[in-house]
Amino acid sequence: MVEQESDDLDLDAVFGALAHPTRRELIEQLAGGPKSVGDLAEPHDMSLAAVSKHLQVLEDAELIDVEKDGRVRRCHLDGAPLSNAFGWLTRYRVFWEDRFDALEDHLEGADQ
Amino acid sequence: MVEQESDDLDLDAVFGALAHPTRRELIEQLAGGPKSVGDLAEPHDMSLAAVSKHLQVLEDAELIDVEKDGRVRRCHLDGAPLSNAFGWLTRYRVFWEDRFDALEDHLEGADQ
Repeated sequence: MVEQESDDLDLDAVFGALAHPTRRELIEQLAGGPKSVGDLAEPHDMSLAAVSKHLQVLEDAELIDVEKDGRVRRCHLDGAPLSNAFGWLTRYRVFWEDRFDALEDHLEGADQ
Repeated sequence: MVEQESDDLDLDAVFGALAHPTRRELIEQLAGGPKSVGDLAEPHDMSLAAVSKHLQVLEDAELIDVEKDGRVRRCHLDGAPLSNAFGWLTRYRVFWEDRFDALEDHLEGADQ
């Protein structure tokens, strides 16, 4: 049960982190490779402090790692939590595919 | 751009709705077929009002449809928003697979 609860907490944090367009854009930016907080903030029409808050949410969800390199904070994307979220959604895709297959079989049966 | 903003709003609502274990459980229950609010609430250790609030979040994200059938409210799962969330995550899975492939190619090259 502890593992289940831990998975739940992870998924809560990951889905919660993804529920904002700026944070999804930051993930998209980091998919191109590690970037400094300054570089990440540049295309966004908001303060560095506001971007840093979004990055903190991503870090709390373990979607990114932040390394200090002197005065520069460098962010790296960690794919594992996204993969967990993907895994949860996949369970339902399989279910829909089964239903689509069943419907298709039913319709094919009706033709014969 | 309007379409992009509308997609963003949808994804905000869908990922936000998925960021709670009770709401993920409700989706799991509805994956078995339509159910009344009473039936959905039964396994949860919370009031009918609390479950109804979670169902409202799912309905606002268009993850479920709620039909009134006399005094009974019957909920149906709508797969389309989950499929959008899945689509967003898929973009990054492809990216990671590419990186894994590149790394594998690099390591194979180093062996020769």
